[in-house]
Amino acid sequence: MTTKPSLRFGRQMVAIPGPSIIPDRVLEAFSRPMPDLYAGPIVPDATEVREQLPGIARTEGECFIVIGNGHSAWQMATSNTLAKGDKVLVLEAGRFATVWGTYTAVSDIEVETLEGDDRSAVDPAAVEAHLAADTNHEIKAILVAHVDTASSVRNDIAAIRRAIDAAAHPGLFMVDCIASMGCEEFLMDEWGVDIAVAGCQKGLMVPPGVAFCWAGEKAAAAHARADQRVGYFDWVSRRDMSNMYSYYAGTPPIAHIRGLKEAFSIIEEEGGIEAVWHRHAVLADAVKAAVAAWSAPGGMEFNITNGANRSNCVTTVLTGDLDHEAMRAMADHQAGLTLGLGIAGIPGFRIAHMGHLNPPMLLGTLGTIEAVLHASGSSPADSGVAAAAAVIGANL
Amino acid sequence: MTTKPSLRFGRQMVAIPGPSIIPDRVLEAFSRPMPDLYAGPIVPDATEVREQLPGIARTEGECFIVIGNGHSAWQMATSNTLAKGDKVLVLEAGRFATVWGTYTAVSDIEVETLEGDDRSAVDPAAVEAHLAADTNHEIKAILVAHVDTASSVRNDIAAIRRAIDAAAHPGLFMVDCIASMGCEEFLMDEWGVDIAVAGCQKGLMVPPGVAFCWAGEKAAAAHARADQRVGYFDWVSRRDMSNMYSYYAGTPPIAHIRGLKEAFSIIEEEGGIEAVWHRHAVLADAVKAAVAAWSAPGGMEFNITNGANRSNCVTTVLTGDLDHEAMRAMADHQAGLTLGLGIAGIPGFRIAHMGHLNPPMLLGTLGTIEAVLHASGSSPADSGVAAAAAVIGANL
Amino acid sequence: MTTKPSLRFGRQMVAIPGPSIIPDRVLEAFSRPMPDLYAGPIVPDATEVREQLPGIARTEGECFIVIGNGHSAWQMATSNTLAKGDKVLVLEAGRFATVWGTYTAVSDIEVETLEGDDRSAVDPAAVEAHLAADTNHEIKAILVAHVDTASSVRNDIAAIRRAIDAAAHPGLFMVDCIASMGCEEFLMDEWGVDIAVAGCQKGLMVPPGVAFCWAGEKAAAAHARADQRVGYFDWVSRRDMSNMYSYYAGTPPIAHIRGLKEAFSIIEEEGGIEAVWHRHAVLADAVKAAVAAWSAPGGMEFNITNGANRSNCVTTVLTGDLDHEAMRAMADHQAGLTLGLGIAGIPGFRIAHMGHLNPPMLLGTLGTIEAVLHASGSSPADSGVAAAAAVIGANL
Amino acid sequence: MTTKPSLRFGRQMVAIPGPSIIPDRVLEAFSRPMPDLYAGPIVPDATEVREQLPGIARTEGECFIVIGNGHSAWQMATSNTLAKGDKVLVLEAGRFATVWGTYTAVSDIEVETLEGDDRSAVDPAAVEAHLAADTNHEIKAILVAHVDTASSVRNDIAAIRRAIDAAAHPGLFMVDCIASMGCEEFLMDEWGVDIAVAGCQKGLMVPPGVAFCWAGEKAAAAHARADQRVGYFDWVSRRDMSNMYSYYAGTPPIAHIRGLKEAFSIIEEEGGIEAVWHRHAVLADAVKAAVAAWSAPGGMEFNITNGANRSNCVTTVLTGDLDHEAMRAMADHQAGLTLGLGIAGIPGFRIAHMGHLNPPMLLGTLGTIEAVLHASGSSPADSGVAAAAAVIGANL
Repeated sequence: MTTKPSLRFGRQMVAIPGPSIIPDRVLEAFSRPMPDLYAGPIVPDATEVREQLPGIARTEGECFIVIGNGHSAWQMATSNTLAKGDKVLVLEAGRFATVWGTYTAVSDIEVETLEGDDRSAVDPAAVEAHLAADTNHEIKAILVAHVDTASSVRNDIAAIRRAIDAAAHPGLFMVDCIASMGCEEFLMDEWGVDIAVAGCQKGLMVPPGVAFCWAGEKAAAAHARADQRVGYFDWVSRRDMSNMYSYYAGTPPIAHIRGLKEAFSIIEEEGGIEAVWHRHAVLADAVKAAVAAWSAPGGMEFNITNGANRSNCVTTVLTGDLDHEAMRAMADHQAGLTLGLGIAGIPGFRIAHMGHLNPPMLLGTLGTIEAVLHASGSSPADSGVAAAAAVIGANL
Repeated sequence: MTTKPSLRFGRQMVAIPGPSIIPDRVLEAFSRPMPDLYAGPIVPDATEVREQLPGIARTEGECFIVIGNGHSAWQMATSNTLAKGDKVLVLEAGRFATVWGTYTAVSDIEVETLEGDDRSAVDPAAVEAHLAADTNHEIKAILVAHVDTASSVRNDIAAIRRAIDAAAHPGLFMVDCIASMGCEEFLMDEWGVDIAVAGCQKGLMVPPGVAFCWAGEKAAAAHARADQRVGYFDWVSRRDMSNMYSYYAGTPPIAHIRGLKEAFSIIEEEGGIEAVWHRHAVLADAVKAAVAAWSAPGGMEFNITNGANRSNCVTTVLTGDLDHEAMRAMADHQAGLTLGLGIAGIPGFRIAHMGHLNPPMLLGTLGTIEAVLHASGSSPADSGVAAAAAVIGANL
Repeated sequence: MTTKPSLRFGRQMVAIPGPSIIPDRVLEAFSRPMPDLYAGPIVPDATEVREQLPGIARTEGECFIVIGNGHSAWQMATSNTLAKGDKVLVLEAGRFATVWGTYTAVSDIEVETLEGDDRSAVDPAAVEAHLAADTNHEIKAILVAHVDTASSVRNDIAAIRRAIDAAAHPGLFMVDCIASMGCEEFLMDEWGVDIAVAGCQKGLMVPPGVAFCWAGEKAAAAHARADQRVGYFDWVSRRDMSNMYSYYAGTPPIAHIRGLKEAFSIIEEEGGIEAVWHRHAVLADAVKAAVAAWSAPGGMEFNITNGANRSNCVTTVLTGDLDHEAMRAMADHQAGLTLGLGIAGIPGFRIAHMGHLNPPMLLGTLGTIEAVLHASGSSPADSGVAAAAAVIGANL
Repeated sequence: MTTKPSLRFGRQMVAIPGPSIIPDRVLEAFSRPMPDLYAGPIVPDATEVREQLPGIARTEGECFIVIGNGHSAWQMATSNTLAKGDKVLVLEAGRFATVWGTYTAVSDIEVETLEGDDRSAVDPAAVEAHLAADTNHEIKAILVAHVDTASSVRNDIAAIRRAIDAAAHPGLFMVDCIASMGCEEFLMDEWGVDIAVAGCQKGLMVPPGVAFCWAGEKAAAAHARADQRVGYFDWVSRRDMSNMYSYYAGTPPIAHIRGLKEAFSIIEEEGGIEAVWHRHAVLADAVKAAVAAWSAPGGMEFNITNGANRSNCVTTVLTGDLDHEAMRAMADHQAGLTLGLGIAGIPGFRIAHMGHLNPPMLLGTLGTIEAVLHASGSSPADSGVAAAAAVIGANL
């Protein structure tokens, strides 16, 4: 597409939907030598991190930290609550709730899917209808993603809860917040979520390696009938707070504990998780203004058709007749911007706007995409980055 | 014990048996920003790390990397090979094989224990007798630690294999190499080990967070009858090398992949894993010479009575009438040396000599222990550090 | 000006005209332990750095590295070439050539100034006239800044050389390239510059602490009559390449040698210094397009009136009736962008675009300034960041 | 000398007399991105560092920080106080006072030398005699090293002051504390020192790049007659504390300011500079006990014959018939210990024991030297490291 000299020789801007950009303080925490495991700051740091986690999901329930990725937290959620032959209902919308379902299937859980698509959110009315039909309550858990990292849809968790309640269904409501936690408003207790899971590498700003499982009372109670428990994930010994070996089921993740401590301090300095949500909302509005300005027949458009379901942490963009692979390559190699691939067969790219992000970073991302549009011979009628700067300006 | 001014104001020497001392290059790898996940150096780095792992355990078999600690690798070993109601035989010697057994018990595996103690190794003859009595072959797996981090015993894995063979027993032979891998000679295929597990944070010189499960053909074949499989740990999808998401069951551990790459490069530069084993053997001989010199009635002595079973990576020392807690505190706060706690009720301390370690580090550790002995009013008749320096000298 | 929640919680963008943004690789080099000084990689690294320096200024002459800041390089230039009572001609334009003059005055050098102002470049014709009048050749050196960091003017060095030649004046032509080296095209030999000086902390991308003095044959010859030589700065012993102690006049700057090695590797990877100049030219065009778009009566305007004299590394912007202090504060605290102060009494701010910089970083800077303009109630008629993105797009 | 496998694969112990071992916190400070220069923490940090410096030398006088190495501080000392044609008296003992003299000679200062040698300290009686003979007071300054890094001699500064006073000589008393500052007791005011100079890279634990010049009232007064002032080094503008540009004569050394802040915090945590001196005294006693134990006819011996003049920061050891180059090479490549070269023609090696050092580091160094002695076929009759451990033990 080009043989011009590359302009990328600055700090590469990596705008992929996770791992997100890690704050310097967290990277510094990752580079420290290993300490005494039984004494010194690591012990209170581990406690502090653990105690801060429920607040991030706005719950009075427990939160377990597992050394693993987001999928390990999926596993912790189901292996502590389900029994062989149980049925789960996957609420499809994009890709990841479905993959979660396949993980449960390995343990001989029956997976039923409320079908959805790649461009829209779960329909709460359909959920209600489906559950109402489950008169024997064979469905033991309902699995959904808050935000799907592939399609960038945001499901309305509160509305889905109301649908479950309307059907008077007792299934555990399990929400994958891997993309959304620390970005989108999430009120676990108020919304009636029984289990939420997340990883550390997106809104929580720490390199991948630990994951979280928040569990409310109903989930804790379900443990009694779980018959496929897994020692490594089991909640029973992990509730023993007397030492880190119990809580972490073995050697604790030193670097991650330190990184989380730094990340949570940054959240505190920002003004708490509500301030973080506010910043993501403003920055997402700027992205949406930019993509709206760029949108054109045969060209770019939002993957998610209903504006109310576009997430505040990632935006999947379809590229129509444009060559999205060439655009990504040009942004990456010529300009120093790494955009997310379209995955799950969605033809376009993904702009991440999660975690450690501020106006210069975001406007730089959007400005560079606009430059690539110009270079691709698709100069937009209106400037997206100008529209985004106006949105930011209105919020300074 | 003291009110003298502390002399600890240099680099703290942390000689605990894991996490071990991390090389600067590995710490630097941990401090890098997150990359594009789908392109760039992380992709070949992940492949390279994966391909180097079998050689480290001297096997032609597979090695799976799991984001987790050593206990997660225990879990991977058993959940891929056992069925509900199976029986495992734990070969007790020190603490950790027994704990491994308790993890399997959570999944309704029956645990039988060949009793041992805290001061000696597993007796191969007893293993043979026990297995010979299992005429129905109800025991499906034999669990043992190569080196027990608590007692510092090293079991004779080759001899135990011979005992299993002498009993013509078909059980899977599973060895916990968490303390020993990358320190002690370990010949998985030659010794007939079916599954070996390890973590990254001891001999492999990377902060805790990933673990390894090496599996030979017999173990791979056992997967067919495993009926309590766990999606996160399951070998089937992890064999799909086409992308890191399959291999790692989700988001890959970026920092750890980079750290392992550096650690394995260091091993390569040293001359390969045999050179690493040689260095550990020499350094361990130095430790043993020092402890022998210090040993006195009512004073210090080796926890492991039989010299042939003292490991090359950690040495547990009993302290007799000495106040080991006061000694540890003095070493730590006054001199800048952190020794390992005696755990599992063993009254003494542990000297780690694993991983990234050379003569100045080890002799500094031993010299400081000797200084603490002097300060404790227990000056040894012979100098341990002088004896250790002589051993090193003979190997330069 | 605002009580809205701050949006700055990402990586702070520091766009001040030095120290510039340091590449991660250079920061990593700064964090390494100290090595053996007499052996190992530091010795060839020091040689390699030294040998690369002449090429960066496009000279066949020598380059001396001095531990110090840019002012120490000023000092090295004059103390090696001038004698007590000599006269120097300062070509005023902005601030820094004048300050250089005051440094020479401390050593009883007479300073004559060709007066200039804060908004324009040195006039070559005036230089010619001034020097032609110096019939006794009392002026021994002509001092000028290539780019003045305060006013952001770029002087036409080649044209000034032609003026000196037209006056047939023998004075040494000394050029301060502190702001410009590694950003702007600079052809020391072709342009007939006798001495050039620079620091490491702007275009050369290393934290402040070393400076450079390039000297051509005529400068080297002038050393013979210098009668106020300074041991630390003296070229004689520094020409002894046999060991670093001579070359650096004492202990070498380990961290900076390593940092320069990394920085020069990055320049090499980009395609050499010409590629670096090209990138700066494109990015500067983008800045100029943005400021042009924002310019308005009573509002923002370029400090340098003649477009041909606006530098490629920093742009000083006057802010008219706008409150530049409030704008800087808002950018800094609300949005995460640190702009340069207007210094030397120039009422406005400075946008740095030097060194390790690419489109996302620059467009982020410009977009954020535009957001601040909106927030200040001064929405521009045309979008500057959109104009800048178009310029970048035309060069991808 | 050996073809055995190397045992060096741990953290290399670099025991050269500067740059010394840098604390992790200081290295971390060196790796941070550049900040706003005009606001934020760097401004109070710079002030704090400046204000802590007089206390480190125990003076009520001023301290100037110069970006440069120790030699730049030599230069600052003399260029602010001497005039062309002045005479200085160099008190020779080892190498560095003499080199300081050669730096002044470049500026046409006449250098007179009170001859000394490589194995002993300056004789105060000889100083008194020499100065008493200077009846016209042509000598304007007396230059001496507190500790000479080459010979490892420690001169008795208080006694030399008494000698100057006994001769009623008005010359400025200038002391090079480059090796000793932050290691050896130094009481500038009490001992009547007029100027002291040091670098940051030894006892003060920061990578090389800044140096210090402490000046008392008499030195400050001498500035009036200095006629070879140098703008970069001049005290006048550097007294302007209103901004860092004046104080640092240009761009401030960001990384070093941050590093010094961390280093001074560590000194504070240790209990202040007296505690640091105490630790060095104890560790030096351990070194002396070790070298005494190793000493043998035709073998190792102290370079400094009088025990009272052996420094607390470096010990130069003569190696007799032993091959010191082979010993250094073996320590370095086989064992991971880098010893200092013998310089200035002194046939042996130097053991540094300065700065960030504790018992494990020092005993590791000594134990490894002992191992090398064994490997060299020169096993000592008594163990040096055992003797050193006993000294440490007596001080825990």
